[in-house]
Amino acid sequence: MSSYLSMSREELAAEFSEVKKEYESLKEMGLRLDMSRGKPSIDQIDLSKNMFDLVGNDLGFKNKDGIECRNYGGLDGLSELKELFAGILDLEPSQIIVGGNSSLNMMFDTIAQAMTHGLGGEPWMKQGEIKFICPVPGYDRHFAITEHFGIKMIPVPTTEEGPDMDKVEALVRDPAVKGMWCVPKYSNPEGITYSDTVVKRLANMKPAAKDFRIFWDNAYVIHDLYEKGDSLLNIYDECVKAGNPDLAIIFTSTSKITYPGAGVAAEAGSPTNVAIIKNRLQYQTIGPDKLSQLRHARMFKDVNEVKAHMKKHADILRPKFESVLAELNKQLSGKEIASWKKPNGGYFISLDVMEGCAKRVEALCKEAGMVLTKVGATYPYGLDEKDSNIRIAPSFPPVDEIKKASVLLCVAVRYAALEKLLG
Amino acid sequence: MSSYLSMSREELAAEFSEVKKEYESLKEMGLRLDMSRGKPSIDQIDLSKNMFDLVGNDLGFKNKDGIECRNYGGLDGLSELKELFAGILDLEPSQIIVGGNSSLNMMFDTIAQAMTHGLGGEPWMKQGEIKFICPVPGYDRHFAITEHFGIKMIPVPTTEEGPDMDKVEALVRDPAVKGMWCVPKYSNPEGITYSDTVVKRLANMKPAAKDFRIFWDNAYVIHDLYEKGDSLLNIYDECVKAGNPDLAIIFTSTSKITYPGAGVAAEAGSPTNVAIIKNRLQYQTIGPDKLSQLRHARMFKDVNEVKAHMKKHADILRPKFESVLAELNKQLSGKEIASWKKPNGGYFISLDVMEGCAKRVEALCKEAGMVLTKVGATYPYGLDEKDSNIRIAPSFPPVDEIKKASVLLCVAVRYAALEKLLG
Repeated sequence: MSSYLSMSREELAAEFSEVKKEYESLKEMGLRLDMSRGKPSIDQIDLSKNMFDLVGNDLGFKNKDGIECRNYGGLDGLSELKELFAGILDLEPSQIIVGGNSSLNMMFDTIAQAMTHGLGGEPWMKQGEIKFICPVPGYDRHFAITEHFGIKMIPVPTTEEGPDMDKVEALVRDPAVKGMWCVPKYSNPEGITYSDTVVKRLANMKPAAKDFRIFWDNAYVIHDLYEKGDSLLNIYDECVKAGNPDLAIIFTSTSKITYPGAGVAAEAGSPTNVAIIKNRLQYQTIGPDKLSQLRHARMFKDVNEVKAHMKKHADILRPKFESVLAELNKQLSGKEIASWKKPNGGYFISLDVMEGCAKRVEALCKEAGMVLTKVGATYPYGLDEKDSNIRIAPSFPPVDEIKKASVLLCVAVRYAALEKLLG
Repeated sequence: MSSYLSMSREELAAEFSEVKKEYESLKEMGLRLDMSRGKPSIDQIDLSKNMFDLVGNDLGFKNKDGIECRNYGGLDGLSELKELFAGILDLEPSQIIVGGNSSLNMMFDTIAQAMTHGLGGEPWMKQGEIKFICPVPGYDRHFAITEHFGIKMIPVPTTEEGPDMDKVEALVRDPAVKGMWCVPKYSNPEGITYSDTVVKRLANMKPAAKDFRIFWDNAYVIHDLYEKGDSLLNIYDECVKAGNPDLAIIFTSTSKITYPGAGVAAEAGSPTNVAIIKNRLQYQTIGPDKLSQLRHARMFKDVNEVKAHMKKHADILRPKFESVLAELNKQLSGKEIASWKKPNGGYFISLDVMEGCAKRVEALCKEAGMVLTKVGATYPYGLDEKDSNIRIAPSFPPVDEIKKASVLLCVAVRYAALEKLLG
C-alpha cells in the first residue's frame, strides 16, 4: 500500500474519488451499527446462564460461614467473595471490600468521601483546588467523575509502557495533585498494559500530597484475548516495597465476567485504606446484596474457575477484535494516516487518525449509520486537542456487523484524510 | 396493680426482693435473646421463596419494554418497578428513581450530594454550619448519617401526632437548618403515624433555607399489623398544594417486603428533585441491578399484590408484637414506672422507663443474656438525656423467645425502677 503522504495531488484526487464511491455505496446499504460502548454481547452473557440455578430453594441461602444471605448484615461482603477477589487481584482476603454491582460506583463514592472527609487527611473540599492526573486517552466515565467534583484534570500522554512517568513524577510534586486515574491492564481505550518499570515508578512516587491516591481500576485484570495474556506487576506489593502501602486503591468487578450491571464489584488496598473506606461504608449502607454474592461464590470455586470462564469470553471476543484489526491492516496499513495497536485483552481498540480528522470520521460514520464513541470522550473535558483519537468497541455486535462496521470506519478514515490532504 | 409511686418504703423493699428473685431465676436460665434490630424473621423471608424461580433461563431476562436486564443500562430503574413504587407511594412513575438494595444508601448519597453539590442551591459544605431537625426518639442510622457529615442535629420531641410542629416551625426560621428526618408512618421506634394536621403543617412550612429538604423515610408505608392500618396523608400532594413541591424527598424499599439486603430501594419527589438526583446518578453508576428489579416485577404485578403479601408478614409479626404488649400490660401497667404505645404497624415498640433507668435496664438484660438496641441510639449523638427510652424490636426471634424476652425486660424495668425509688 502506498502512503497518502507520498502521493501527488492527482493521485490523491483519484484515490478520493474511489473512496467517495465506496463510502456512498456503504451509505446506501442503510446500515445500523453501534461500536460505541464496551458492552458484552448476549453470547457472552449467556455463558453465565447457570448462575440462576445456583441460589434458590433447593440449595439454600447460607454461605459457607452459615450466614443467611437473604437477611441484613455483612458490611463488606461474604468471605467467599473476598477470597475470590483476593485470587483475582493477588491480594489477601482481608484487603478486599466487596460492594454492590458497580466498581464505578465504588470509585465515585471513594472520591466523594475524599471530598467530604478526606482519605486520611483533611477533606479535599477544604484544601482549595484539587487536581488529578489523567493518562490519555482514557476512560470517559473516570473523567466524568472528577469533573463532577470540580477536580482539575491534567492529561498526561500514554506511551506503549503506560503513562509518561517523567511527566507524572513532575506533577506529583504539586501538593494540589491528589490523585491519578489508571487502567493498568488492557487500558481503556488503548489496550496497553503498564510495564514493570512504570508500575515500579508509580509505586515509588513521593507525592507532595500525603493523601495522594492512585485509583487503580483493574477492570480487565483477567480479560485476556489470547492464551498468553499480558502480565502486570502487583501494584500493592510494589507500593509496600517502596514504603508507600497506602498509595493505591484497587478496583475491579465481575461486570465483564458474569453480568454487566448484575455482577459484583470490589475495592481493595492497604489495611489503612480498607479502614478508611469501611468507616464511610458503616454509615452508607447496611450491606451489599449478599444473594448476588452467593450466586457468584457458587459459580466460581476459585480464581482458576474464573480464568477458565474467561477463556470462553475470549473465544467470543477474539474474532471480533481480529475482524477489526484485519480491516485496519487491509485498508489503512502503510498509508500513514492512522495508527493503532493490537491489544491482547480488554474491550477496546484505539485508533489515532490524522490530526483534525477524528470528528470528521465520526460524522461520516454517523451519516452512514454507525455510532462510534463520541470523539473527545477519551480525554478530560471531552477535549482531544489533536482531534485524532477514536475508541473502537467491538464487543457487542455480532462478527458480521463488526466486519461491515470496520469497512465503513476505514473508508471514513481514508475519506477524512484525503479531504484534509486535498485541503 | 398498684403504682410504685404510691407504695411505702417497706412495700417497695418487699417488691424489690420479689423482683430480684424473679430476675435471678431468669438469669439462671442462661438465656440468649436478641431484640436489638428491626430484622425480619426467616419465616417472613421465606414468604418470598418463589422469587428465585421468576428470573432464569425459562422465563428470559427481558422486561416488558424488551430491555435485556442482564446487560448495562437503565440509570433509574425498570418501568415496572417505577410503576410498582408509584403505586406503593401514591405518586407518578416519573417521580420514582429506582436504586440498589438499600434506601439508607440513597439517603446517604443524597445528603452526600447536598454536601458537595447542593440540592438546587450552593453545596452545603460551602454554607457554614448546617443543621438538621431530628424528631426523637428516632432512627439511629439516620442520626449516624447526619453526624458523619458533621451536620448539627437538633432533637425535637414527638407527640402522638408526630413531631412537635410548634418547635419545628420555629426551627426552620434559621437558614442553617437545611433538613429534617421523618419516619412518618409507624415511626421508628414509637410506631406512631403523623396526623393529617402534622403532614399539612410540614408541607406548608416556609423554611428560611431555600434548599431545605424533608427526608421522608416512608420505610413502613404498607407495613400494617392489622387489617385496618393507620393512614398517612400524601406528603407530596400536600407540598404541591402548599406551593412547596420540592420540599420533601421520599424514600422507601422492599427490604421488609421481600429481602432485607436483597430488595429494591426507591427515592422519589418533584420533577426538580428527580432531575437533581439523576444529575448525580449519571456520574455515580451505570445503573442498578436490573435482574433484582426484574424478579420483583415478576413477583408483584401491582401494589395490590404487594398488599396481599404484606398481610402474610402481618400474620407472622402480630403475635410477636402482641406477646410483648401483653407482658408490658401484665407486669408494668398501673405501676407508673413505664409508658408505651400499641403500634398498628412497623417494626418497633418504644418503651419509656423511669428517667435515669434505661441504661440500667439494658445492663440488667445484658447480664441475663438479652441484647437490646443500645440505649441512647434513638437519639442524636446517642444521647438520651432522660436515659429513659428503650427500643424493642420483636420481629426476628420466634414467639416463645419473644415471650421470655418480654418477661425479662419487664422484670428488669421493675428492678431498675425499684432500685431508683429505694435510692
